[in-house]
Amino acid sequence: MRLGPVPDVVVYEVGPRDGLQNEPEAVPTALKIELLARLARTGLSRIEATSFVSPRWIPQLADGDEVARSAPRVPGVRWSGLVPNEQGYERLRAAGLDVAALFISASETHNRKNVNCSVAESLDRFRPVAARAKSEGVALRAYVSTVCGCPYEGPVAVSAVVALVEQLLALGVGEVSLGDTIGVGRPQQVRALLAAVAGASPLTRIALHLHDTYGRALANVEAGYEAGIRTFDASLGGLGGCPYAPGASGNVATEDVVDLFEGGGVTTGVALERLVDTAAWLETDVLKRHLPGRVLRAHVGARARAARAEGA
Amino acid sequence: MRLGPVPDVVVYEVGPRDGLQNEPEAVPTALKIELLARLARTGLSRIEATSFVSPRWIPQLADGDEVARSAPRVPGVRWSGLVPNEQGYERLRAAGLDVAALFISASETHNRKNVNCSVAESLDRFRPVAARAKSEGVALRAYVSTVCGCPYEGPVAVSAVVALVEQLLALGVGEVSLGDTIGVGRPQQVRALLAAVAGASPLTRIALHLHDTYGRALANVEAGYEAGIRTFDASLGGLGGCPYAPGASGNVATEDVVDLFEGGGVTTGVALERLVDTAAWLETDVLKRHLPGRVLRAHVGARARAARAEGA
Repeated sequence: MRLGPVPDVVVYEVGPRDGLQNEPEAVPTALKIELLARLARTGLSRIEATSFVSPRWIPQLADGDEVARSAPRVPGVRWSGLVPNEQGYERLRAAGLDVAALFISASETHNRKNVNCSVAESLDRFRPVAARAKSEGVALRAYVSTVCGCPYEGPVAVSAVVALVEQLLALGVGEVSLGDTIGVGRPQQVRALLAAVAGASPLTRIALHLHDTYGRALANVEAGYEAGIRTFDASLGGLGGCPYAPGASGNVATEDVVDLFEGGGVTTGVALERLVDTAAWLETDVLKRHLPGRVLRAHVGARARAARAEGA
Repeated sequence: MRLGPVPDVVVYEVGPRDGLQNEPEAVPTALKIELLARLARTGLSRIEATSFVSPRWIPQLADGDEVARSAPRVPGVRWSGLVPNEQGYERLRAAGLDVAALFISASETHNRKNVNCSVAESLDRFRPVAARAKSEGVALRAYVSTVCGCPYEGPVAVSAVVALVEQLLALGVGEVSLGDTIGVGRPQQVRALLAAVAGASPLTRIALHLHDTYGRALANVEAGYEAGIRTFDASLGGLGGCPYAPGASGNVATEDVVDLFEGGGVTTGVALERLVDTAAWLETDVLKRHLPGRVLRAHVGARARAARAEGA
């Protein structure tokens, strides 16, 4: 693929990891690898290939080593993998990925439920990984969950998020992705959070990771962009929700973010039609159910109408 | 119902008209009447009860006269009906509704496909209705369709929308609702449109009527609010999409708009839980399919989990 000019925003694809880890049944390894190959041809520059969390916790991604090794190394695409600890980091290194992604929560209870230790203990566990990454030239990303609210504690203090961002940057993390894990954030809240975070870090090192539980993900993307954020996590087709509650809880859909920006004259470097093709393949040939992405539904519907009109 | 303080924004419920007119099967009259009664108990202050368009064109609302007569007249609720011409206006008067709602398109082709005449001819047809409404003390609302784009013509000139707003206000219309009929609008575009419209009308007389085809409805609501709009049309549960394409094309969901505002400290006067109850009743007992509203799905999911936890 010829590389074009640098786009205005980066859309960071997390579907193969944050999406597929929530599927009730593991997707066959060969199809995961095909998904990565298809995504690498859409113009996406950052893709999270898989997770190196223990298969005991996430059996859906137990094949992370093989999937990561098979991610096509093409110019312009950087691959990341989720890494819980040094063991996970070893696996990421063995598979040869570019970026190790750590994860931690802004709320104590969520962190404890997720990884069975306090936020401070999580930071301590990151230290050996961060030291190795630095000496071995591996880039670090960190996800901070529950920045707009916690399912157990409710509201989360902005100061807790800011403190975590500072500590993660001090550890050598290059990019911190702020996650509204349960989708409760509102534009006004996102603006206030980012104004506070901007006091601790240049916003070029901050990404937003938004879920669409209450339909506000794109409103929050827009608020984030206006505030100066230029990297947005998203998931193909909105993958990552609960398949038993249509439309609920998923990541914001990659196509929806790309279409929001491109139509408004903000470049993403991503070819929307290829992305839609890939999402349509994923729902039809792999998952065999509708994904919640709105642009996907609209395009699939328009294609079906056009096909019927041709046949009529 | 005791009337509380004046809310910051008006959420204008159009589901019984703009939603039910798109259902493939007509909803039984008694259930429509029950829907209006339930909506009138949620705190909504403006509700569109039905349409007085000819049953030949919209058989789903052929019972408009009976439904409108049965809308409960309770303090704090004003009822509107859609009126295509003088005949429709007569029916609205006979049923005793408060507000006559006219409709016209900002694009010539859409207007012609919709009502088989030009935009100028539509305005001419409005004149006798407007004259009677004025002399009889009936308020007028007007819907302007395709303000962000037309399915036949593509982009629609901002100047065409501004000219229509001016002409409608000159006719005596009290409130103009600007409709993004196909959901293609983006926040930046909404801001530019409203800046231009504000030169022709105080924004207190302008409402926004947004569809969520591409997931951007709430982002556009937010942009509209920031620009000064204080009235937003919405449809219970996001009713109004095509039921064969889940998630596509519906009106923005009333619950999603109410939750966006209330959680951000902007009052709507609407009790969210009652609205969710009504939407849950509508999908379970009346339509027997899932509606696209995100807040509805999230609440229904949370209630199911709570019920399972109690039973366990």
